[in-house]
Amino acid sequence: MELKNSTIKLDAPKGSNVVVLKNLYLSCDPYMRTRMKKIEGSYFDSFTAGSPITGYGVAKVLESGDSNFEKGDLVWGLTGWEEYSVVTPTQSTLFKIHDKDVPLSYYTGILGMPGMTAYIGFYEICSPKMGETVYISAASGAVGQLVGQFAKMLGCYVVGSAGSKEKVDLLKSKFGFDEAFNYKEEHDLDAAFKRYFPDGIDIYFENVGGKMLDAVLVNMKLHGRIAVCGMISQYNLETTEGVHNLFCLITKRIRMEGFIVFDHYHLYPKYLEMIIPQIKDGKIAYIEDVAEGLENAPNALVGLFSGRNVGKQVVMISRE
Amino acid sequence: MELKNSTIKLDAPKGSNVVVLKNLYLSCDPYMRTRMKKIEGSYFDSFTAGSPITGYGVAKVLESGDSNFEKGDLVWGLTGWEEYSVVTPTQSTLFKIHDKDVPLSYYTGILGMPGMTAYIGFYEICSPKMGETVYISAASGAVGQLVGQFAKMLGCYVVGSAGSKEKVDLLKSKFGFDEAFNYKEEHDLDAAFKRYFPDGIDIYFENVGGKMLDAVLVNMKLHGRIAVCGMISQYNLETTEGVHNLFCLITKRIRMEGFIVFDHYHLYPKYLEMIIPQIKDGKIAYIEDVAEGLENAPNALVGLFSGRNVGKQVVMISRE
Repeated sequence: MELKNSTIKLDAPKGSNVVVLKNLYLSCDPYMRTRMKKIEGSYFDSFTAGSPITGYGVAKVLESGDSNFEKGDLVWGLTGWEEYSVVTPTQSTLFKIHDKDVPLSYYTGILGMPGMTAYIGFYEICSPKMGETVYISAASGAVGQLVGQFAKMLGCYVVGSAGSKEKVDLLKSKFGFDEAFNYKEEHDLDAAFKRYFPDGIDIYFENVGGKMLDAVLVNMKLHGRIAVCGMISQYNLETTEGVHNLFCLITKRIRMEGFIVFDHYHLYPKYLEMIIPQIKDGKIAYIEDVAEGLENAPNALVGLFSGRNVGKQVVMISRE
Repeated sequence: MELKNSTIKLDAPKGSNVVVLKNLYLSCDPYMRTRMKKIEGSYFDSFTAGSPITGYGVAKVLESGDSNFEKGDLVWGLTGWEEYSVVTPTQSTLFKIHDKDVPLSYYTGILGMPGMTAYIGFYEICSPKMGETVYISAASGAVGQLVGQFAKMLGCYVVGSAGSKEKVDLLKSKFGFDEAFNYKEEHDLDAAFKRYFPDGIDIYFENVGGKMLDAVLVNMKLHGRIAVCGMISQYNLETTEGVHNLFCLITKRIRMEGFIVFDHYHLYPKYLEMIIPQIKDGKIAYIEDVAEGLENAPNALVGLFSGRNVGKQVVMISRE
């Protein structure tokens, strides 16, 4: 990644449905790594070398040829990693922000794509029931921290893993997880699962892949469910780790299901209705890690893959 | 395995619910291999060294302490690999045979556990729709040959793989598959799938595991389903092959689900109602490979793992 200065034309030609945005916050999300190489069947097109990368962000509309948006609107959705962007929105790529009574940056996280990912992944894919045991990897990340709290609200026993003592402490003290552990300090993941889940795992919210998934598989309960949200441990590898314990899918009758949030954006209004009061009433905790300035964006994104961020990684471009 | 001569007491003590069986046919099924070692989380207990192995079979009741069975009944279910067995049946381990107007050996296959496996796996787990594309590995086996015919009945496009020219020919000429290939002759499985499924696979009925699964994953369609029935290629390995392409579960929103037939035996009467008329009307084809005599049973079982059998492998012990 390199920072480039150039001039772009900031207008929306008449008759086009182009929208001109001033970017305020950019979102660093693990899936973006998969757009930097050709991963067989990735869900997004690869980035175009020489052009600004694209991703989720919060922005202000400067001009609009699309009747759904007008000058001055605040929006979130797919934009460019640049100060100003010219986009052609669709129904599932740009959303008007109605509630401004919360930090705007939240629309890159709890109120945006990662929030919806947690909501859909947990409620729609995991088929959770009160009292079930839930394990979440990358649990202090943008998605994990929310999934854990949703599971607690439903009366589940919730354990998360993360990669530092600070994060593990947050999981227990701030997000209300029943237990949490630092996966980097567990040389035997299987033993860790036997310790925290002596009777097995009903639900695994998969953010990590590889060895973690292998260790989880043998610790699942009968009729368990695995919602496959991401596999961050694999994105930087030339050759992905092989998963050896898939035979457990049969013996334990496990359902393992991948999903992508943008199949489910029709449920976004329903999600906001649920989550905004919780935020305002202080019933849900949310932590973000904000880098300042476009020049710090590449570093912030790269940091996700060594777990440098604590909570949702955001880049502030401009305070309106 | 060794053949042993010994004497057993063939009576059903009063007040017990023991049933004494004369075994007629024994069923050779791939899952039995997993009972010969400690596979993490196998669905059956391991075999007991020094005792006769157990498995599905067809038998005649000689004596019964269980009011559900009486002397002279023909039954199928879990029995021993021996001439006579003494069993304590439960509702899902021993079934009375009502329709004797079909070959009795069919109750080890199309009318027994493998038939129910095909029925449940295809209709309950795959969520099939007319016109979808279906791939079946180990397609000429006891389960595969039925799944393919069920899929054709529903108007699906069906491709199967097997390990010899003879089996491939059977798949097309006898079982009505649209296409079939010999996986041993495809050095590039991915290319084979691109050839037979240019637009991808909606449903994969998984009997094989390992490299086969990896190649299928990248060739699945969006929202595809994988019913995980077995992984025969892995049972004889010290270390299972790693599966590398699970990231496709996300990008293609795939549901991958393991199942075991014995969770579903309550649907057996419904299955018989469907399948028996089809057999009698010649609308469904079924091939079995019958070995004669208990002394040939070990060899017949071992043959499954090199694909020596053509169709369902049965061992005839006695013709009543």
